[in-house]
Amino acid sequence: MSNYVCVCVDLCDRPKNTNVRVSLPVVCFVWQTAMVILFGVFIRYNAESDVRWREFRRTNNISSDIENDFYFRYPSFQDVHVMVFVGFGFLMTFLKRYSFGAVGFNFLIAAFGLQWALLMQGWFSSLDTDGKIKIGVENLINADFCVAGCLIAYGAVLGKVSPVQLLVLTLFGITLYAVEEYIILSILHARDAGGSMVIHTFGAYYGLAISWMLYRPNLEQSSRLQGSVYHSDVFAMIGTLFLWMFWPSFNSALTDHGDGQHRAVINTYLSLASTVLTSVAVSSLFQKQGKLDMVHIQNATLAGGVAVGTAAEFMLMPYGSLIVGFFCGIISTLGYIYLTPFLEKHLKIQDTCGVHNLHAMPGVIGGVVGAITAAAATETVYGKEGLINTFDFDGDFKGTTPSRQGGMQAAALCVALVFGIGGGIFVGCILRLPIWGDPADEDCFDDQFYWELPEDEESVEPVLEYNNHTIRNKNVYVSNLYLICETKQLCFVSNTFLYFQ
Amino acid sequence: MSNYVCVCVDLCDRPKNTNVRVSLPVVCFVWQTAMVILFGVFIRYNAESDVRWREFRRTNNISSDIENDFYFRYPSFQDVHVMVFVGFGFLMTFLKRYSFGAVGFNFLIAAFGLQWALLMQGWFSSLDTDGKIKIGVENLINADFCVAGCLIAYGAVLGKVSPVQLLVLTLFGITLYAVEEYIILSILHARDAGGSMVIHTFGAYYGLAISWMLYRPNLEQSSRLQGSVYHSDVFAMIGTLFLWMFWPSFNSALTDHGDGQHRAVINTYLSLASTVLTSVAVSSLFQKQGKLDMVHIQNATLAGGVAVGTAAEFMLMPYGSLIVGFFCGIISTLGYIYLTPFLEKHLKIQDTCGVHNLHAMPGVIGGVVGAITAAAATETVYGKEGLINTFDFDGDFKGTTPSRQGGMQAAALCVALVFGIGGGIFVGCILRLPIWGDPADEDCFDDQFYWELPEDEESVEPVLEYNNHTIRNKNVYVSNLYLICETKQLCFVSNTFLYFQ
Amino acid sequence: MSNYVCVCVDLCDRPKNTNVRVSLPVVCFVWQTAMVILFGVFIRYNAESDVRWREFRRTNNISSDIENDFYFRYPSFQDVHVMVFVGFGFLMTFLKRYSFGAVGFNFLIAAFGLQWALLMQGWFSSLDTDGKIKIGVENLINADFCVAGCLIAYGAVLGKVSPVQLLVLTLFGITLYAVEEYIILSILHARDAGGSMVIHTFGAYYGLAISWMLYRPNLEQSSRLQGSVYHSDVFAMIGTLFLWMFWPSFNSALTDHGDGQHRAVINTYLSLASTVLTSVAVSSLFQKQGKLDMVHIQNATLAGGVAVGTAAEFMLMPYGSLIVGFFCGIISTLGYIYLTPFLEKHLKIQDTCGVHNLHAMPGVIGGVVGAITAAAATETVYGKEGLINTFDFDGDFKGTTPSRQGGMQAAALCVALVFGIGGGIFVGCILRLPIWGDPADEDCFDDQFYWELPEDEESVEPVLEYNNHTIRNKNVYVSNLYLICETKQLCFVSNTFLYFQ
Repeated sequence: MSNYVCVCVDLCDRPKNTNVRVSLPVVCFVWQTAMVILFGVFIRYNAESDVRWREFRRTNNISSDIENDFYFRYPSFQDVHVMVFVGFGFLMTFLKRYSFGAVGFNFLIAAFGLQWALLMQGWFSSLDTDGKIKIGVENLINADFCVAGCLIAYGAVLGKVSPVQLLVLTLFGITLYAVEEYIILSILHARDAGGSMVIHTFGAYYGLAISWMLYRPNLEQSSRLQGSVYHSDVFAMIGTLFLWMFWPSFNSALTDHGDGQHRAVINTYLSLASTVLTSVAVSSLFQKQGKLDMVHIQNATLAGGVAVGTAAEFMLMPYGSLIVGFFCGIISTLGYIYLTPFLEKHLKIQDTCGVHNLHAMPGVIGGVVGAITAAAATETVYGKEGLINTFDFDGDFKGTTPSRQGGMQAAALCVALVFGIGGGIFVGCILRLPIWGDPADEDCFDDQFYWELPEDEESVEPVLEYNNHTIRNKNVYVSNLYLICETKQLCFVSNTFLYFQ
Repeated sequence: MSNYVCVCVDLCDRPKNTNVRVSLPVVCFVWQTAMVILFGVFIRYNAESDVRWREFRRTNNISSDIENDFYFRYPSFQDVHVMVFVGFGFLMTFLKRYSFGAVGFNFLIAAFGLQWALLMQGWFSSLDTDGKIKIGVENLINADFCVAGCLIAYGAVLGKVSPVQLLVLTLFGITLYAVEEYIILSILHARDAGGSMVIHTFGAYYGLAISWMLYRPNLEQSSRLQGSVYHSDVFAMIGTLFLWMFWPSFNSALTDHGDGQHRAVINTYLSLASTVLTSVAVSSLFQKQGKLDMVHIQNATLAGGVAVGTAAEFMLMPYGSLIVGFFCGIISTLGYIYLTPFLEKHLKIQDTCGVHNLHAMPGVIGGVVGAITAAAATETVYGKEGLINTFDFDGDFKGTTPSRQGGMQAAALCVALVFGIGGGIFVGCILRLPIWGDPADEDCFDDQFYWELPEDEESVEPVLEYNNHTIRNKNVYVSNLYLICETKQLCFVSNTFLYFQ
Repeated sequence: MSNYVCVCVDLCDRPKNTNVRVSLPVVCFVWQTAMVILFGVFIRYNAESDVRWREFRRTNNISSDIENDFYFRYPSFQDVHVMVFVGFGFLMTFLKRYSFGAVGFNFLIAAFGLQWALLMQGWFSSLDTDGKIKIGVENLINADFCVAGCLIAYGAVLGKVSPVQLLVLTLFGITLYAVEEYIILSILHARDAGGSMVIHTFGAYYGLAISWMLYRPNLEQSSRLQGSVYHSDVFAMIGTLFLWMFWPSFNSALTDHGDGQHRAVINTYLSLASTVLTSVAVSSLFQKQGKLDMVHIQNATLAGGVAVGTAAEFMLMPYGSLIVGFFCGIISTLGYIYLTPFLEKHLKIQDTCGVHNLHAMPGVIGGVVGAITAAAATETVYGKEGLINTFDFDGDFKGTTPSRQGGMQAAALCVALVFGIGGGIFVGCILRLPIWGDPADEDCFDDQFYWELPEDEESVEPVLEYNNHTIRNKNVYVSNLYLICETKQLCFVSNTFLYFQ
């Protein structure tokens, strides 16, 4: 006689509706149309990208086309561009079933964000006397930087929000960034070449605050998907390496021509190299058998680049960069081991990518290092002219002293923190509205709700659960048939088998 | 009693022979030998890459080594190089079992094509008075551009042709390209910075015409392989992103030093950003549940870069670029949804990668936008000097008016179309000869015919088909055992099981 | 009645202990601390990256910031950086279960090596009168070059050593490299732009000699892991393509400003293109059915870049580059087919990545080509000034003749060989000490001993072996149940099935 083992696929009733067929197209079309109109009203080419450049050259006595800012900054711009789209995008593909969302939504919000950033930053920084924003390669880099802040925030909420929520997060994030950046760079006159404060501290706390507001008490129902598989970890290493390699370009993209860019590259290069060794050391030390953890290699190795962001253009000295990287590698790796679980358990902050360890802490360290090195700057080291050029003690800020500059740097760090946390709480409230199509707690980290997936590899679901009692009395001794099917085919094999017990 | 279920692997008799062991090596050796001889006769270094550069500098009163064209164009060249080899190569890895062919044959034909392109383009454009072609970084970029046209054509026939056919396609494609480019740029004096017409329109229609000539009525027999799997879609995103990020370098690589390159970058950057949002919107709008389709994200998001190719160096204005991208994203995505199935069903054009949507339509749009913006150019916007410089109204073309230039641009678009379609039909006829080792209709999109595959993951074949009648009378109720084995192991399990019924 | 088939997982007793929980952190911390101290004592910014650059500019009458060496070399530097971290890293991911080790340990040793290289090379080449090493972008490139030598050596021992051994290999490798480089470039005054001798010949023979010293007679016990799977081959192509595309930057990164960099790029570009065609031809010719082998496409296609390294800056002529590439593609591919098995069988050199074919032979060819082209240099081709500039016949070497230079180049090649083989044997002896935590012969090529692997895809182990005798007398005709489980799930299915025989 045959027994039939009922294959019960327990599809929980899903109270949440992830259908974004109306909201996503509407938001995209409305915002892109708004961009066209606002660009039509406000945005024009600057002197170096306008057809009147030759005139400008003659007027300003510029001897050659090669002096166009384009040739100083374009290679760095492209590296930053790669970091934003491939670096951040692929770093987040580590989840086993959220690679489409990682790289695809990263693409979407970056493409939207950079347009909005050109406008917001333009209104604050590049507004010409004729009421137009004049853009060139420097503005493109700034827009990419601004977007990076929002992508960091995305890392904290990865897999738990809908694309519409991400667009809202980006719209507000860019806006807050532009205001915060204006206060820090123009009003406080702080220096922040690689954005330790402006980008990383702000972006990370913005994302963490949103994640706190969107706390999901039952997220462990998605725990089967909250991990990596072998090849998704290799994909993530593509992101890690492009971030790591191009970080010197990130920190030097907007620094002074000549020695400013040159020095920022050297400092960042060294800090990053140092971080790799201490991350590996701590990762090995805290694991059974001394095995390395891919999460640390993918993330903590980058902390040195974040932490050297503010001071990269200063006379930090090569050994200074190594020291910054040394400690950041340790702190960031320990953060992944101890702090992320603590934050989730006790502070109800669920931080998917561990941005607190990779961006928040190193960002704050970077701000502090920047304040100290600025305050400690002396004419002996910098020379009279070097001091003025490096810290831009000119115009309204003529005569500022290094110690005062150090204070301003510290104040800037506070501004970044306040904007990040405050802005995140505010935007988090908005994102809690039940209209954005976010997934239920048991459906997080799963591409199938927002993406058409290829047919033959569907989402990882427990298809078959073994009913112990049915088989106990047969000539069958099954100890533990627990089958999670990855492919339809496997299921059928098992079905067949069980039928004829 | 045991029943033996016959495991019948239905290997269809294959009338076509995919063995290229003679033809592929012969073609490679003959052509590479020809390249060596022709390079020996014709190709030399130009003044800026020759050891006499210092002399040249003094003679021409060039103040610094940094004025060598190398420093203006090398970063863009490397970006274009990445687009050609990684961009196009990985974009085509989306098929589940044709990744080796996508990235490997892309590599092969690009490496061959760029040598032939240096010669062909050299004969038409860089031939010196001494009968030698003098090459420098600009020629390398031009060769990469030329190759891009053939790689676009490859996209239309991906998975359906043999490597020998691809080499023939490339040999003729490069030749046609060089003639077409000469007519468009030198005779008609049209401008086409990013090659909307010269590269994309020509390349796409060339490939589509070939695909039409090679129509396979029974291609649905390969339909099990004509789709993606989860990780092959992630690989394809590597291609998409590198194309997307570096497209500004593509469109600016050969434009004027200074503002020309600077402006082309800005226009392309903005057009691409805009395309992403409208592609996402349309993709979501036309799918059940508002889910996004990876095919659209991988392809349609790039249409804006194609369409802004011709006009990128003009004073298109930032909002103009956004508008071009806006509509191209919509049109390209709709093309994937409606036009590709239509072309296959009614016009017998099987377009594997949808190059009609990504290159043909946006290329034509780019040509039209170029013609309109050229015709509409005024001295108010460009200035007298700017108008002459931008459109190169000099030498034989002194005194050309913008409206006449617009006409020439439109004529150029027609030339590209005629060369693409005509050339494709001609080359398609050649490729129909039964000597090239192309696969049978049921063997398309399968790497196993041209590549040694790793042992443990062989091609996806139905290995075991369930014989309902054999088991019907046993104590076994098998409802639907349909097993497609991906790994040998799985087969063995099933075999074993079935034996002892 | 049920029979119980004993599932015997034959876990061989492992005499070797791969626990590196003490040694790896200790080595990392000690060495990184040493780096901080040594950098503090020795390393400073050079004139072009120091804040006093503006003063330097005025003193040296440099007209613009764009003349800072940074702008001549930074784009090439970033390309080299990508080759070192992504190129070498991903090229080695081809093994089915060693991708973490390939890309992760590559990352670790490169990050350590570049710091040590800055010191070692600095002591030999950049030591200022004040006892400090002054660094700039050129030093960063040199450090990356130096690291590349050690990464080549890693290719020979991939999968067979522990991370601690790799750090030791790197420490000594960098030291040997710096001495060898000093002898070749400064004492012998040989030219070696792309390091055919200094980097490739040295690195490859260093690795091969180590591999010979660490010969593993029972390595075939790991043979199940010493191959690729479909997607690991695609990952490896990422490495191949980034190496291939950026090789022109590698060979030109340190050549003379102006025509020197320009010419090196053209020569390398052409040589590589030529190699692809002959590699494909030979690969197809020597395989049944003319199928291509991914190993050849991934590796042999790069040989042309290695072989043109020394002569890239010379007046090799475009056809000369094609010829070099032509023969290297053939030789390298034949090496993979015939020489690698021969080396393993008869010389006891186990060369995981085939570095003998990709680096050693092409490196030697490159040295020979360099010696010949240097000896054959004439004033007719180079001009009087060009000859002096290209070969740096200045200072102590004023009046050297081309033929003498050719002799020096040949001597340099011998030096590289002696340092590679001798150094490798010496370091190999050290690495044979039983304290480094290397894996047993049957555990090679397996990430699980040094990495925490994701839970659901554990290492490929034979879990179940079929006991023929147990089942022979049942109504069961199992011919060959040999099951290697890739996933736990599959094992359970089989277990269950077998229980109820």
